[in-house]
Amino acid sequence: MKSVIDRISIIEVGPRDGLQNIGKFIPTEIKCEFVKALVESGIRELEVTSFVSPKNIPQLSDAEKLMSMLDKRDDVVYSCLVPTVRGLERAIRVGVKKVVFFVGASNEFNVRNLNANIEETISNFKIMKKICEENRIKIKGSISTAFYCPFRGYVNPEDVIRVMNMLNDMGVDEIILCDTAGYATPKDVEILLNKVFKYYKPESLGLHMHNTYGFAIACVYKAFEMGIRKFEASTGGLGGCPNAPGATGNVATEILVNFFEKMGFQTGISLIDLEKALDMINEFIEKDKKCIRNM
Amino acid sequence: MKSVIDRISIIEVGPRDGLQNIGKFIPTEIKCEFVKALVESGIRELEVTSFVSPKNIPQLSDAEKLMSMLDKRDDVVYSCLVPTVRGLERAIRVGVKKVVFFVGASNEFNVRNLNANIEETISNFKIMKKICEENRIKIKGSISTAFYCPFRGYVNPEDVIRVMNMLNDMGVDEIILCDTAGYATPKDVEILLNKVFKYYKPESLGLHMHNTYGFAIACVYKAFEMGIRKFEASTGGLGGCPNAPGATGNVATEILVNFFEKMGFQTGISLIDLEKALDMINEFIEKDKKCIRNM
Repeated sequence: MKSVIDRISIIEVGPRDGLQNIGKFIPTEIKCEFVKALVESGIRELEVTSFVSPKNIPQLSDAEKLMSMLDKRDDVVYSCLVPTVRGLERAIRVGVKKVVFFVGASNEFNVRNLNANIEETISNFKIMKKICEENRIKIKGSISTAFYCPFRGYVNPEDVIRVMNMLNDMGVDEIILCDTAGYATPKDVEILLNKVFKYYKPESLGLHMHNTYGFAIACVYKAFEMGIRKFEASTGGLGGCPNAPGATGNVATEILVNFFEKMGFQTGISLIDLEKALDMINEFIEKDKKCIRNM
Repeated sequence: MKSVIDRISIIEVGPRDGLQNIGKFIPTEIKCEFVKALVESGIRELEVTSFVSPKNIPQLSDAEKLMSMLDKRDDVVYSCLVPTVRGLERAIRVGVKKVVFFVGASNEFNVRNLNANIEETISNFKIMKKICEENRIKIKGSISTAFYCPFRGYVNPEDVIRVMNMLNDMGVDEIILCDTAGYATPKDVEILLNKVFKYYKPESLGLHMHNTYGFAIACVYKAFEMGIRKFEASTGGLGGCPNAPGATGNVATEILVNFFEKMGFQTGISLIDLEKALDMINEFIEKDKKCIRNM
């Protein structure tokens, strides 16, 4: 007999982190239908789009349109990535209630990804934080390259904790540690979390793993064993990173749901309904060869 | 700095467990070339074929021819599956030095797989064991459905230990626990190994996981944490089981090699050379749509 010990939060990032890597533009109606199908499956928090320059990521140039089309519900959180004040202002105009601040633990990555060093990025976030406060917007602080950097290699836990402290001092609501390139092993997870847990409680943190080498589920399990209960994932294992060469998709949401449910934990997500969402988006994505699935 | 703590044994089962599921017959010369490429990569033990009825598994009907073509080396072990006295006699005639006895922990599976119940299978193995002794042939005892049975569901650790004891009493040289259907989670691995370790040392055991739901690497990691150092795998994640509906390939050898090497362990296997073997066999397999890869 399996008993329910506690609950696992699975945050869907497919509409943002997954779709941003698809070359061919997906109509906003299809994106909206995808998000709707994900919500129907029981997912209660989704990173749906980015308010970035349409020139940088043309796929997400319909951020306003998508946000205005989504079915607003009190029990569902739609978060959006905002790298600049301008992006944040765009998000506010369409009623976004939670935003994502992304900063690299590796300065080399941050410079290439945001065209600014870590300190400049954090200074910018401080301005944005005030605007968020005024508008009662929650903030997720996501730290990219928290294990490895595609340009620098291994990233020391001390560098990760330094950036965590910057975000924490600024007053973000939660911190997500991201293995942007998908290079981390469970041993790396263990080393980082052991150091991080000296300053942060497991419940204030989440993990975002990519499956470049097929290690993601082992890393998730290690983090779970150490107390982490929040994981980001992408339905169908869609994803990658435009600025992390060779990185493939996120750990697949359906694998995580099945994994934890089989071990007796509740995710609140129906695998059958999740597969409907996957089938629905796959119909559009399979026409585009740039899609990378990691199942 | 990563330090070498100890060594991981990776046993390649692709030529047997992988290729047996390919519909189109692969010429023996290609199989031989595949095995040779795997040995070149540093693999030192391989399950290369089965001495079964050619009617049951036509793909492996060239077992004698393959064995006689392989480059015999003192430092390389080619093991072969033998379900019957007749199969064993065939294997002996072509100089096989190590054989695999397969028995299910689930009687339902064993009956469907071997057309005999567990007791009948073990009685048969006892006769075969004597023949092996006379011919100085080593025996690997592989226990299928050691976690779940596709026909019965969860298999109790007590049932697994009962069959382990039968094999051990008979005098096999090692025991491999196989998740034939690929349903096991790390929690299942933990529960089984905790009970098994009351009677058996980790170093006398190995694990053989399939990746049906994408959990295999997490299960391997859990077993590794608990002391297991021997893992069976299939290059390219080839595989499945003709008698386990829905089961997909074994955990991929290249993922395991990369996984353990990245954590600072030695496998003795070159990833670059392993990929040559994979490329070589993929050329033939990709023409056949029945192949299932799990990468």
